[in-house]
Amino acid sequence: MTGIAPAPFTADDYRARMERAVQAADDAGLAGLLVAPGPDLVWLTGYAPPADTERLTLLVLTPGRDPVLVVPTLEAPDAVKAAGASALTLRDWTDGTDPYAITADLLDGDGRFGISDNTWAMHLLGLQKALPDTSYASLTEALPMLRAVKDAAEVDLLAAAGAAADAAFEEIRTMPFAGRRECEVGADLADLLRRFGHSRVDFTIVGSGPNGANPHHEMGDRVIEHGDMVVLDFGGLKDGYGSDTTRTVHVGEPTDEERRVHDIVREAQEAGFRAVRPGVACQEVDRAARAVIEEAGYGAYFIHRTGHGIGVTTHEPPYLVEGEEQPLVPGMCFSVEPGIYLPGRFGVRIEDIVTVTEDGGRRLNNTTREMVTVD
Amino acid sequence: MTGIAPAPFTADDYRARMERAVQAADDAGLAGLLVAPGPDLVWLTGYAPPADTERLTLLVLTPGRDPVLVVPTLEAPDAVKAAGASALTLRDWTDGTDPYAITADLLDGDGRFGISDNTWAMHLLGLQKALPDTSYASLTEALPMLRAVKDAAEVDLLAAAGAAADAAFEEIRTMPFAGRRECEVGADLADLLRRFGHSRVDFTIVGSGPNGANPHHEMGDRVIEHGDMVVLDFGGLKDGYGSDTTRTVHVGEPTDEERRVHDIVREAQEAGFRAVRPGVACQEVDRAARAVIEEAGYGAYFIHRTGHGIGVTTHEPPYLVEGEEQPLVPGMCFSVEPGIYLPGRFGVRIEDIVTVTEDGGRRLNNTTREMVTVD
Repeated sequence: MTGIAPAPFTADDYRARMERAVQAADDAGLAGLLVAPGPDLVWLTGYAPPADTERLTLLVLTPGRDPVLVVPTLEAPDAVKAAGASALTLRDWTDGTDPYAITADLLDGDGRFGISDNTWAMHLLGLQKALPDTSYASLTEALPMLRAVKDAAEVDLLAAAGAAADAAFEEIRTMPFAGRRECEVGADLADLLRRFGHSRVDFTIVGSGPNGANPHHEMGDRVIEHGDMVVLDFGGLKDGYGSDTTRTVHVGEPTDEERRVHDIVREAQEAGFRAVRPGVACQEVDRAARAVIEEAGYGAYFIHRTGHGIGVTTHEPPYLVEGEEQPLVPGMCFSVEPGIYLPGRFGVRIEDIVTVTEDGGRRLNNTTREMVTVD
Repeated sequence: MTGIAPAPFTADDYRARMERAVQAADDAGLAGLLVAPGPDLVWLTGYAPPADTERLTLLVLTPGRDPVLVVPTLEAPDAVKAAGASALTLRDWTDGTDPYAITADLLDGDGRFGISDNTWAMHLLGLQKALPDTSYASLTEALPMLRAVKDAAEVDLLAAAGAAADAAFEEIRTMPFAGRRECEVGADLADLLRRFGHSRVDFTIVGSGPNGANPHHEMGDRVIEHGDMVVLDFGGLKDGYGSDTTRTVHVGEPTDEERRVHDIVREAQEAGFRAVRPGVACQEVDRAARAVIEEAGYGAYFIHRTGHGIGVTTHEPPYLVEGEEQPLVPGMCFSVEPGIYLPGRFGVRIEDIVTVTEDGGRRLNNTTREMVTVD
């Protein structure tokens, strides 16, 4: 299972998205778009096959032609049930036949195509072999904006997912931390996300004490102690759209140093948020947040980019990272999540999802960013 | 989460597998192997990163050089905990730097490389751009045998997974079917697989009545009725190795036609099993099973290949399909699973995992293949 829950959109919505995608491809000088199972396919068609396997499933979008979904015969009965199926022509293929030859017949033999990032290399190689004069660019490279600018209905769904994550935080902060294992707190967080409407939990990071200094530490058997900093980073999908928020809490009263580091991260997060407005390059948000941490002398301890987009996945373009010159556009939604990680000691990260408005940014997470103490 | 539970092997086991893989690559005229997160990486290193994302993680295996794992800096703390980590050199990269340039420095600039099937197209395109004179072949194309021949310890793990799946079937056949929804029976099957030691359930297909005629129907809200055929196809991972078995049961006494179709499939499965011995081409197993069904006049209703390999995944080479001339080798493990699907009416499939021995085949599933009636 890809586990991506389809969002509540109609065949007309999917048809409009596919038309917009083809237009964007044409504008970018591409001969078409090739989309394998995953978030792009869900967004364009509402279809998530039962499994992502060695059998080729591929949406072929080319200007002036109706969308075609190349699909294994034995998965065709699932494909016709997708919300966007009536906007598609199905071209099924049986085991033992060559799906790349079938796809090649649909393509301009010397065109350049955008291909979804997570398409299997095996399938790309199959197409390159069938059509040696074609060339390819990943969708993130060729059309980073394809899913990046959300319409009002999508922003509403992201706001609802964010509100549900906030509700989970408001509950978890009232629960006991000291004496419990990280994985117990993580299980509570997952339960809370589901209780507040999430169909899928993607991650529940509980990084206590020194574990908080590993940004991707998920959770483990460590027993949380009085005096620990605890990074809580959690999210998933609600009605097909993502949540992702981080708050760093302290078990009991923090030391002056812990409070100072938390303040720096909070100011960095605020600076990143304040940098958000239409026309500003993505990297400027990263720079604004990073400058605060560097000026405070902790630059070496902020070891990741400032943020990533969110939509039908919890990780997608735009990326708020040095070198990304893409200007922000109203409707873009992404995380702003600076952190400081002191190896062997503790970590602090604060993260909100932010959407770009006409004149700035709007946070989709709204729990306090002040240091919260827990028991 | 990739969700692939590491198997109980040591760093020496992983070192030996990597050495064997490099030797196989060299023998095949490849300049090296590139392995992204997924089953190949788990099999070679024991490492499954917390998520498979746009950030490049890639194992680089080249003759005459120690294995290098290119890994995002913020996931390096996870990578060093992998069972095979001590056999690897880690080369970490931070957000904002170019992981393809870092990888390119490790590669022969005009070599041909094997690359894991499920590597993201985005990453392959990044490598092709960084090193335009390199060429690539999917691991399934270049080295289909890489994981296909299991050693004795692996066959034992697959046999144990098969025995656990068999135990689940022996229990489910005693439970009530009529009047319950497919998804309830499926939930019971998943519980049973876990109770018998599975760490992960990959699929629990419950195809009752007409749903059984869709080979990939998972399960739904249909209430199972007296008189239904019910296809039960289930499996997952136990101690890192896969199970996958199918039995088709009948609620109450079957009709003559139902019994006849079941008999044909059982004979086809038996014929496929009997065709298994070293040196026989994969496609011969498919042909042997298919011939029985064709001779009985149901050829048009057997709409998939006869089988697929199994190991650290539940779907991998070798594929038992027309056109696959790969000879069988002792230690290969795969499904033999012919079926007949009568649209709108019912389906029958019977599936065992079979391992190739020195002089034939051995079934790793051993519940009865006679028609079982349930209540």
